[in-house]
Amino acid sequence: MANATEQHIASVFDRDLEAAQALIMKMGSLVEVQIIDAVKALEQRDEDFAKRVVADDKKIDALEELVDQEIARLIALRAPTASDLRIVLSILKISGNLERCGDYAKNIARRIAVLASTPGMADAIPPINRMAREVEQMMKDALDAYIKRDAVLAEEVRRRDVGVDQMFNGLFRELLTFMIEDPKSITACMHLHFIAKNIERMGDHVTSVAEQVIYLVEGKYPEDERPKDNQAPYLPEMSEG
Amino acid sequence: MANATEQHIASVFDRDLEAAQALIMKMGSLVEVQIIDAVKALEQRDEDFAKRVVADDKKIDALEELVDQEIARLIALRAPTASDLRIVLSILKISGNLERCGDYAKNIARRIAVLASTPGMADAIPPINRMAREVEQMMKDALDAYIKRDAVLAEEVRRRDVGVDQMFNGLFRELLTFMIEDPKSITACMHLHFIAKNIERMGDHVTSVAEQVIYLVEGKYPEDERPKDNQAPYLPEMSEG
Repeated sequence: MANATEQHIASVFDRDLEAAQALIMKMGSLVEVQIIDAVKALEQRDEDFAKRVVADDKKIDALEELVDQEIARLIALRAPTASDLRIVLSILKISGNLERCGDYAKNIARRIAVLASTPGMADAIPPINRMAREVEQMMKDALDAYIKRDAVLAEEVRRRDVGVDQMFNGLFRELLTFMIEDPKSITACMHLHFIAKNIERMGDHVTSVAEQVIYLVEGKYPEDERPKDNQAPYLPEMSEG
Repeated sequence: MANATEQHIASVFDRDLEAAQALIMKMGSLVEVQIIDAVKALEQRDEDFAKRVVADDKKIDALEELVDQEIARLIALRAPTASDLRIVLSILKISGNLERCGDYAKNIARRIAVLASTPGMADAIPPINRMAREVEQMMKDALDAYIKRDAVLAEEVRRRDVGVDQMFNGLFRELLTFMIEDPKSITACMHLHFIAKNIERMGDHVTSVAEQVIYLVEGKYPEDERPKDNQAPYLPEMSEG
């Protein structure tokens, strides 16, 4: 194959790749907004706002389908191999992770209608807010690490997920206390618990994105177990609860 | 290209595809066992058994990595296009779904150590068992539908997920009642609730597998929302709770 042709192929591949990467960045921005809006709707107990968050998840799903199509087209037309193929497949994984995060934001928003008829539980809102903001920041950083192929930043994101797990465990114990003190709060606490768990799960998906970055840069996944697995603080602590 | 060469390429592609499909079938069998074992360990309050379930999840993760490698190799070597590529990408999605189900089984098993120090809650075990058995059956059928490219069976699996959601909602209300009646049961009920939710989530992933089958056979995803979304019975019912 002539050198000029090779270069030509490389550049159309790069252009297609950039287009696909731009789509996951767009997905990421939408998901970040959804996380913050879902928690805002919860804080303000605003059912209409929550309904908009639920409806907006469709945009994220549509983008995921578009990414799938783009990637299929890219593979079919450009037949990437080796590290190019690794990048292409990482885009599929990341868009899957982002779509799941969008689903979790939707799940949070869907619970707000139920919470409207339960006691306020104002004390649980600030910790939920803090978790959501941290996960949103982590997502921003993970996508930033992806674009810059920055394994150090990705590793940092991965480590920060431990903090999210700790926030979740703290809130879990707090909710248990509320429920034991006031059985009328049980329904509300169960839903808040799920909301917090949804945010914690988003953290896991953001961690997966960070691990994709590490894989792309270093050619292998981090060898230690996810920090999350080693820690599992809720196990010993809960057994005293 | 000569006809013989084309045929040759087709047959090596088919062979590679079969190998990759065999891997997801193997993953599926392991996940089915994990679902049943996790719930069995719960029923028998057997912490050692639960630890084995947690440890065995690594086998599923290893298979997922192997599937990823196989698929990357297959794309690089055979450069599949059109419907071949669609099949190849569906394998990646399905192995992702199975890996998540494995994680949920592991999460269930990890809670058993905590539950050991809480009241027995024997009444909640049979409904959890029923949910797990139904999801395991659905997984069997979804993978069967995949191998046979049977969109009718896949559609049936998808519909059955509504039943799983209903079982979950019934159990949720039951757990609320237990907690209100006896605050000492709150910790146990919170964990059982998560366990049930993990099974319900597995149902969602099995539904995704079924939707992949429909996509492969019919060239597009089912147009109606997932039955799950339309129903959401926990919303109105919970507001009375």
